Amino acid sequence: MQVHEMKKELSVLQSSLHAYEHAMAVMRADSETGAPSASAAARGETMAFLNQKSYELLVSDHTRELLDGLWAQKEELDGDVLRQVELLRKNLDDMTRIPVEEVAEHSRLRNASLGAWLQAKANNDYASFEPYLAKMIDAERRFAAYKDPSRPAYDVMLDSYEKGMCTAILDPFFSMLRSEIVPLIEKVRTLPPPPAIAACSIDRQRDFSACLMDIIGVDRTRCALAETEHPFTISMNRWDVRITTHYYEDALLSSVYSVMHEGGHAQYELGVSETYQGTVLGSISSTGLHESQSRFYENLIGHDAGFLAFLLPKLKEYFPEAMADVTERSLFCTANHVEPSLIRIEADQVTYPLHIMVRYELEKQLVAGTLTTKDLPEAWNRLYKEYLGLDVPTDALGVLQDMHWGGGMIGYFPTYALGSAYASQILHAMKKDLDVECLLRTGDIAPITAWLNERLHRWGDRYDPAQLLEMTTGEKFNPSYYVAHLKKVVADLIG
Amino acid sequence: MQVHEMKKELSVLQSSLHAYEHAMAVMRADSETGAPSASAAARGETMAFLNQKSYELLVSDHTRELLDGLWAQKEELDGDVLRQVELLRKNLDDMTRIPVEEVAEHSRLRNASLGAWLQAKANNDYASFEPYLAKMIDAERRFAAYKDPSRPAYDVMLDSYEKGMCTAILDPFFSMLRSEIVPLIEKVRTLPPPPAIAACSIDRQRDFSACLMDIIGVDRTRCALAETEHPFTISMNRWDVRITTHYYEDALLSSVYSVMHEGGHAQYELGVSETYQGTVLGSISSTGLHESQSRFYENLIGHDAGFLAFLLPKLKEYFPEAMADVTERSLFCTANHVEPSLIRIEADQVTYPLHIMVRYELEKQLVAGTLTTKDLPEAWNRLYKEYLGLDVPTDALGVLQDMHWGGGMIGYFPTYALGSAYASQILHAMKKDLDVECLLRTGDIAPITAWLNERLHRWGDRYDPAQLLEMTTGEKFNPSYYVAHLKKVVADLIG
Repeated sequence: MQVHEMKKELSVLQSSLHAYEHAMAVMRADSETGAPSASAAARGETMAFLNQKSYELLVSDHTRELLDGLWAQKEELDGDVLRQVELLRKNLDDMTRIPVEEVAEHSRLRNASLGAWLQAKANNDYASFEPYLAKMIDAERRFAAYKDPSRPAYDVMLDSYEKGMCTAILDPFFSMLRSEIVPLIEKVRTLPPPPAIAACSIDRQRDFSACLMDIIGVDRTRCALAETEHPFTISMNRWDVRITTHYYEDALLSSVYSVMHEGGHAQYELGVSETYQGTVLGSISSTGLHESQSRFYENLIGHDAGFLAFLLPKLKEYFPEAMADVTERSLFCTANHVEPSLIRIEADQVTYPLHIMVRYELEKQLVAGTLTTKDLPEAWNRLYKEYLGLDVPTDALGVLQDMHWGGGMIGYFPTYALGSAYASQILHAMKKDLDVECLLRTGDIAPITAWLNERLHRWGDRYDPAQLLEMTTGEKFNPSYYVAHLKKVVADLIG
Repeated sequence: MQVHEMKKELSVLQSSLHAYEHAMAVMRADSETGAPSASAAARGETMAFLNQKSYELLVSDHTRELLDGLWAQKEELDGDVLRQVELLRKNLDDMTRIPVEEVAEHSRLRNASLGAWLQAKANNDYASFEPYLAKMIDAERRFAAYKDPSRPAYDVMLDSYEKGMCTAILDPFFSMLRSEIVPLIEKVRTLPPPPAIAACSIDRQRDFSACLMDIIGVDRTRCALAETEHPFTISMNRWDVRITTHYYEDALLSSVYSVMHEGGHAQYELGVSETYQGTVLGSISSTGLHESQSRFYENLIGHDAGFLAFLLPKLKEYFPEAMADVTERSLFCTANHVEPSLIRIEADQVTYPLHIMVRYELEKQLVAGTLTTKDLPEAWNRLYKEYLGLDVPTDALGVLQDMHWGGGMIGYFPTYALGSAYASQILHAMKKDLDVECLLRTGDIAPITAWLNERLHRWGDRYDPAQLLEMTTGEKFNPSYYVAHLKKVVADLIG
């Protein structure tokens, strides 16, 4: 076949794979929003069918020949197409290395394990979940060996969420973070508790979310907001992104920050170049860079003193009674309040990385086999005492709080901390080009998004994360900006 | 191949076709509810891809051989499997007879025509839509000739929405209806206008919808309610049905009756036998029988004096202020008020069939070629004057009000009137087994739904509509019960 014919086939292959992904993403989003509760089993069968069709299309002699054929003539391909072939070959290799029966068995185990986790969390009964967790860790370790037997299993796992990530990078990162953050927490321990914000009607909070999406420039013709227990972002393509939030009368800032967090994820997806849509370059695979954008909008924009001063009059307009006594200073202190707590997803940005460190230490040992799942709760509680100074009263508020491990997502947690560090590094670079302080004070977010789009969003999966971070910021991964940011938050709180 | 092997393949074929249908149905429902406005074009491509895959699966030599192989041994098949083979062969034949290029061209024309209709309706500009309508009618006529050149085109169209339906049945049906209804309208023309219901908060209306679904027994774990401009029902399977409604502060009964109407459609889909799920027997193809169930719950239950008396205390509980002065009698008169009007979807149940008759007369002539699309508005206005005594002030309130013709749905309208007539015939049969009057007065709908399920719902597409109607009611189509029902409504209004 001629190269131009193969390129045409490559394009059809990718748009077909994308169509299956698109349908499954709609079904996933719908399952969390519009679908009735009894619909899950039948939907599971249809999604398994679509997944199977997509698998058969990729893992076939025909596709293998096409990709090998293109690879053999790689000097004739432009960079975009070469990258597409590379990524597809990698996907195909990864899928081929794991025996098909084990993939199906893994999917069943994962469902059972997640079910057991949900039950165990509700009943505060770690023992009932422990055998599933042990099996999940075994399975993930085995899969890592299939993918790359030459490297430590945990590094292979880390790599699957953030290409190129490994303990050689993370060990010094986390140890530096720990030595910097623990003294910070000491500094704020004696601050008086900030004033709470009074109850706000959920209907008004809904209206405010739309206003907030407009302020941060999330295009509402391409991004819809729904309501779910746990906020998330699902993207179909740059014309169709779904974000969700949850409203609590007594926690206005909870929905404000979940809209900004998911809104940041959405900006990334909405910004991927139109030419990459329907190709593998259209899906962002770096979990760390994705999290950097949610953290950028949530923390670096949303928690900024200047931006909060801009936001306050709008908040007073929507919630005149609840915000009557709130000042710029009190809003900043409430939004940025630092206090060690038990639950990761409720943590402030200063103590947050400590929650991640606990998980990083433990999953590293679990994979290495130096910690058993039986001993896990005790180790968890010991680290929470050591890092956060807290006694964990129950496993439900401890080791059972997150679904990740039960779902086989081992090596995922570090990307949450990486995301925050990337975000600060990106902000540092942005400040060379833009007067960010002034833009935040005036609520003028468009130039910030435009900068992020030009340097980062539009590239989709065109580059590996380390390379893209360097292109965006002009330097390699450098967590010092993150530490400086956290120090500044604490300094501003002390006043 | 052995019969048992072929039966196994038949089952896989059907569950695969069903999986594509399922995914597309979720995408359709989502497009009307959760999706952002700019998402349509990309979704269109993915749905076209899934549709193409489903088409390739059905219209293939392999499937043809399988179905012919089964057909050749039909004496060895049980009734369910035989019916599956019959329906699939019919689908395959219909699809094969129309050239593939024309199917694609038709889909493009339909999109353009619906776009032109939307514009024309907004601008009250029939002339801009007329050329599209002319082309749509030509295309539908051509398709009818492909399907069955031996029968009149309009009969072939009618048959595609209600198998076995034809002008030989509909002409006497409509002419009888007209002669009975016109005098009825004369009788109520002098009645005083009924009292209006005051404004009701939309939040309370939302709560009441859930209460109403529980009252009529629509299982909310399997049926979700959303909000759209125009209410509809979409079914994935018996575990997942979506209905929608629209709330207006000033029109409480509008949402009450749309929930009961769509709730009736939902009951039918939720009631199809579990053994038919994932097969062609699981999809109800009779538009008339489907409409009979929406009309049953909306009109024969919802507008019944006894049921309204049962409902009134609940309405007073949810809307104490708006319902303060409403009595059983005034609620009945408001709900059943009869008055000729211009818009079909807002018509009361007595004048409603006249709207259908206008469309039946006109589409029959359009297909026969005895009326041109150019002369259509004039003919429309003349019939509204003749049947309903009304002058049509603008085409937007006249010939442009419905999307059906612009979308190529010619032969669909009669099923709306048939549905109401079927519903009355079904009620007549039900009354032989149940004390319906007492059940409605006490709001005890479960035995009514159970009766409908046993006689009708569970059968899905197992039988042709005429046969199923006869099985359900013990007699052939008999519209006299419908006329008797309308006469009783008018008599009760006069008091």
